[in-house]
Amino acid sequence: MDEAIPRRRKVWGWGYQGEGPTPAERDAVAAMVAARFGVREVSFEAPPPVEALDLRPPRVHPPEALAHLCSDGPYERAVHAYGKSYRDLVRSLRGDYPHPPDVVAYPRTEDDLVALFDWCAEAGAAAIPFGGGTSVVGGVEPDVGDRFAGAVTIDLTRMAGVVEVDEVSRAARIRGGTLGPDIEDALRPFGLTLRHYPQSFEYSTLGGWIATRSAGHHATLATHIEDRVESLRAVAPAGVVETGRFPASGAGPDPNRLFAGSEGTLGVITEAWVRVEPRPRWRSSAAVRFDGLRQAAHGARALAQSGLHPSNCRVLDPNEALVSGAGDGSAALLLVGFESADHPLEPWLARSLEIARDSGGLVDEGSVRHRSEENGSRGGPVGTWRSTFLRAPYLRDVLVSMGMITETFETAVTWDRWERLHSAVLAAVAETLSAVGASPVVVSCRFTHVYPDGPAPYYTVIAPGRRGDEVAQWDAVKAAASDAIVTNGGTITHHHGVGREHRPWYGSGYTAGIALLGPPAEIGSGAPGWHAGNLDPPRRPRGTNG
Amino acid sequence: MDEAIPRRRKVWGWGYQGEGPTPAERDAVAAMVAARFGVREVSFEAPPPVEALDLRPPRVHPPEALAHLCSDGPYERAVHAYGKSYRDLVRSLRGDYPHPPDVVAYPRTEDDLVALFDWCAEAGAAAIPFGGGTSVVGGVEPDVGDRFAGAVTIDLTRMAGVVEVDEVSRAARIRGGTLGPDIEDALRPFGLTLRHYPQSFEYSTLGGWIATRSAGHHATLATHIEDRVESLRAVAPAGVVETGRFPASGAGPDPNRLFAGSEGTLGVITEAWVRVEPRPRWRSSAAVRFDGLRQAAHGARALAQSGLHPSNCRVLDPNEALVSGAGDGSAALLLVGFESADHPLEPWLARSLEIARDSGGLVDEGSVRHRSEENGSRGGPVGTWRSTFLRAPYLRDVLVSMGMITETFETAVTWDRWERLHSAVLAAVAETLSAVGASPVVVSCRFTHVYPDGPAPYYTVIAPGRRGDEVAQWDAVKAAASDAIVTNGGTITHHHGVGREHRPWYGSGYTAGIALLGPPAEIGSGAPGWHAGNLDPPRRPRGTNG
Repeated sequence: MDEAIPRRRKVWGWGYQGEGPTPAERDAVAAMVAARFGVREVSFEAPPPVEALDLRPPRVHPPEALAHLCSDGPYERAVHAYGKSYRDLVRSLRGDYPHPPDVVAYPRTEDDLVALFDWCAEAGAAAIPFGGGTSVVGGVEPDVGDRFAGAVTIDLTRMAGVVEVDEVSRAARIRGGTLGPDIEDALRPFGLTLRHYPQSFEYSTLGGWIATRSAGHHATLATHIEDRVESLRAVAPAGVVETGRFPASGAGPDPNRLFAGSEGTLGVITEAWVRVEPRPRWRSSAAVRFDGLRQAAHGARALAQSGLHPSNCRVLDPNEALVSGAGDGSAALLLVGFESADHPLEPWLARSLEIARDSGGLVDEGSVRHRSEENGSRGGPVGTWRSTFLRAPYLRDVLVSMGMITETFETAVTWDRWERLHSAVLAAVAETLSAVGASPVVVSCRFTHVYPDGPAPYYTVIAPGRRGDEVAQWDAVKAAASDAIVTNGGTITHHHGVGREHRPWYGSGYTAGIALLGPPAEIGSGAPGWHAGNLDPPRRPRGTNG
Repeated sequence: MDEAIPRRRKVWGWGYQGEGPTPAERDAVAAMVAARFGVREVSFEAPPPVEALDLRPPRVHPPEALAHLCSDGPYERAVHAYGKSYRDLVRSLRGDYPHPPDVVAYPRTEDDLVALFDWCAEAGAAAIPFGGGTSVVGGVEPDVGDRFAGAVTIDLTRMAGVVEVDEVSRAARIRGGTLGPDIEDALRPFGLTLRHYPQSFEYSTLGGWIATRSAGHHATLATHIEDRVESLRAVAPAGVVETGRFPASGAGPDPNRLFAGSEGTLGVITEAWVRVEPRPRWRSSAAVRFDGLRQAAHGARALAQSGLHPSNCRVLDPNEALVSGAGDGSAALLLVGFESADHPLEPWLARSLEIARDSGGLVDEGSVRHRSEENGSRGGPVGTWRSTFLRAPYLRDVLVSMGMITETFETAVTWDRWERLHSAVLAAVAETLSAVGASPVVVSCRFTHVYPDGPAPYYTVIAPGRRGDEVAQWDAVKAAASDAIVTNGGTITHHHGVGREHRPWYGSGYTAGIALLGPPAEIGSGAPGWHAGNLDPPRRPRGTNG
C-alpha cells in the first residue's frame, strides 16, 4: 500500500474508529436492556486487538506489478473478513477468523480491476468484490472452500466519485465505490439528491447497493436502487460491459436488472447513471395510532392502494413504536409523510388522514406537520428518526458485547398472505428461541415499505444469548424464521440480499428462468449469490394446467 | 382441428373479418389523404383470396397424437405468416408468402405445449410462439432459414382466461393467451381493471405483452406491463418454471425481468399474476397549447419531474394534433389527465396547469374537465380519443391499399438528448424518403409516455409509395431513422419490441451482461429477439477509466 487510509473502519463493530456511543450512552442502553430482559449482571466483552488475531498466512501473493494496489496486513485482512451481520459480529468479537482474505486489493481504475481479475484467474484465487462491507447476509465473507487457491478481496472504495451531473434529465454518473454521504455531498450544490438511505448509508456504496438491490428511503414507488438505474458499466472477467442510457426501454430483457441483485457473481459494477431528484422543499407528515399491527396494516394497505404515493408510510407495531421512541408501546403507529420539491402537500396528507381514520386509526393531531424550506423547520421528528435509524447499528454493538442476541430479518409478501406469514414468523421465532434456551425475547415488526399488493415486514429480535453459543442459537432461529417466511409466500429478502445466509432458501421461484440460461461465465468469484451450483433445475410440468 | 374458431381474423389487415371502415369511411379517408398528398388517382388494391395463395406444401407434419391440436390449412397458415407491420401488410396485400408456418398448433394446456415442443425438437422444427399476432417488428414471422426442417407456429389464444382474482392484494392470475378485452371483461365484476391499453389491445394477449415489454395506458409510473408482473409461469423446452409471487423482492436478479422482453426465445409465458387496480371514479384533464413541440416538451418535462404522476401526459406536435382531431395544426398540445379511484383530482390538475403556464403554455380553459362517476360523463374526449386510437390500424389498412407508405416507430431518450435526436430523425426520414422518390411526406411526433429523465417520442410517417417498391422504400427510411435514433442515444424500441426489424440495432448496450451468461438453452425457436447468434461479445476495457 502506498497510500494512507484517511479514516479507518473498526475491525469489530459499526463505523469508523473512534466513533460510536460514549461510555455513558453505552451504560444507559445496557441498563435499559438489562432491566427489560432481567439480565442480572452486565459485562461488556471486548474484541481482541488486531495484533492478537491468529490469521493464517496468506496463501496467494500479488505479482510485482500489482503489489502497490494490495495489502496482506492483518488489519486489512481482518476488516475485510466479515460483513456486519449478527453472526459476523459475534465471531469477530471472539477473534474467530478462520477464513480471512489472503490479500486485499484496492483498484483505482478499471484497468486495475482487469489486471486483478487476470491475476486471480491465473492464481486460481477467488475474487470477492467488497463495497462498504455492510452486508448482513454473509455477502462478503471469503469462505470459498477448497476450489480456490486463495481469496482476494477487492475493495472498491477507491473507485469513487460523482463524475457527471445531467441537470436537465436529472441524472448523475457515479462511480461504484462511492459512499452514500459522498454522493449526497456532490449532488447538494446542484440542488439534487439521490435520496437513497439504507440503514448502512454512511458506510455502503452505490455499486454495493445495485449489486444487492438495496431498498432505500421511499416507502412507495421507486423503493429500490435498481428503480433509479438508467445504465451501468461493469468489469467482468470477460471484459467491460456498458448498458445504454435510457429513461425506459422495451428492447429485450432489461440488462440493468440482471446486474441488480447479481451480488458480485457477474463482475464488478464500476459506475452507473442514476436518476436523481430535486431536494424536497415541502414536507407534510403525521402519526396515526391503531389498536395493533393488524389494524395499522389495514390503514397502510388502504394508503398503499390509494394512488397517493407517500414518501413515508411506515407501520410500527407497539414494540417498535416503544423502542424507536415514537410511541409508548400501547398502540401501533402508522407514520405517513409526503415530500415534494414542486408543491405544498396539504391535500395529499388530508386525504391520507381521511383514509387512516376510515381504517380505524386515531390521528395524533399534535403530530400533523406541514413544513416548507422557508419556515426553516427541516429537522423535527424526521431528523430525529433518521438520526436514531442511522445510530441503531452502533447500539447493536453494545447489545452484542453484552451477550445479547440481536438481529433483524425482513421479507415482502402479498396482503392476502401477510397475516398468516406474520403469525407463523412470530411463532417460529418464539418457539425456537425457547428451544435453544434464549428467553425472554422481544420481537418487533415494522413495515419499511408498502406496495399496492403487499407490505415489506421487517423484524427485530432481541433476546439474551448464551456466551459462546449465540451463533448456533441465532442460526436456529434464522432457519425457523426463514422456513416460516418461505412457506407462507414471502420473499427470502426484500432488501438485505441473498448472500450466504439466505442461500438455502433461494430456490427455483427466484432462479426460474435464469436457470434456463445456464451457468454464468466462470468469474472465479467466491462471493455468494446465484451461480450454477446454486440453481435448482427447472421443474418438470405439472400434470394439470393449473 | 376439431373445433370451430368463433371469430376469424382477417388474413390481410386489422381485426376480425367483417370489421373495419365502411366503404363511405374508406372513401372519406382516401379523399382527405389524396388531397393532402396530391394523389391524383385513387385506386384500392385488394389482397388475393386465401384460395389463390401459393403456399409451399407443409414440410413437417404433426404426429397422430397431436393432430387434433394442429392445422395446416391455408387460412391458418396465411393468417399466422405475418404480424402487422407495414412491410407485413404490403407483402400480404401482394400475396407474397415465401415462408408461412408449415403447421399451426393450438395448445390448450401446458402438457399440450410440452408435447408440441418435444415434437418440434424431434422433427428439427422451429417453434414460434404466437399470441395475438399484432407484432409490428417482425416478431412472429416464421422466416427461420435452413437450420430448421420446418416452422410450427404455436397459437396461444386457447390457453386463455382469468383464473383467480385476489381482491385484497389487487392482483389477478391470468393465462398468457388471454386477449385484452377478455381480461377487462373478467375483472369488471370485481370493480378492477388491468388498464393496459396498447393500440393492439383488442387483438393482443397478456403473454405477448409480457414477452415484448408492452407499454400501455399510463404515461408515467407503471408504463410497461412488466411493472405489473408479480410472478409468471412459463413452459420452456427444459421444463416448467414458475417465479415466486411477491409485491417486491431483493433476492437476486429479478427472474420476471428476464422473461419480460424475451420475445419467445426462452419459452412460452403461460400465465402471470399481475397487479390490477380499482376502476377510476374521478378523472380530471385539460389541454394546453404551445407554440411548437419543443415548447410543449418543456412543459412535459416539468410535469414529468413534478412528482404529480399524471395518468396521461401526452404531447402532440401540430401535425399529430391535426391528424388526431385534437387541434387545428397551428400549435402543439400537451394533454394532461389524472385518474383516481380514491379521490377527486382538482389539486393535482390545478398544479399541473400552473406548471404548464410557467412553461409558456396556454391552457385551453374550455378543455378543463373534472368528472366523477356520479356525474355520469365517462365518455367525452378520452372516450373519443380511445376510439380514434383503437381505430387507427383500420385506417392504416385503407392507406396501404391506396399505395401509401404509412408506418410508425418510437424510442425513449433522455431529456438532454431528445432535441438533437428529434432533429436527426426528421432529417433522416425526409432525406431518405426524398432519395427513394417518396414525397411529399407527413411526419408527426407525439410523446406517448414521459419519465423524469426523458420522453418516449413516437413518430408516424405517411408518404405516397411506389406500388411494388414500397417495402424497399420503407426499409431504407426505417434504417435511416433507426441509425439516427441509436446514434443520438435513443433506445431502438420503447414499446414495439425488437423482433426482426430492430435486430440490426440491438447491440451491446442492450445485451451487455446477458452476453456474460452465455447462450440460452436451445429451444428450437426461430422467433427473433436475443439469442446466442444475436449477441455482441462484451467489449474489452477502455484504456481510460472514464
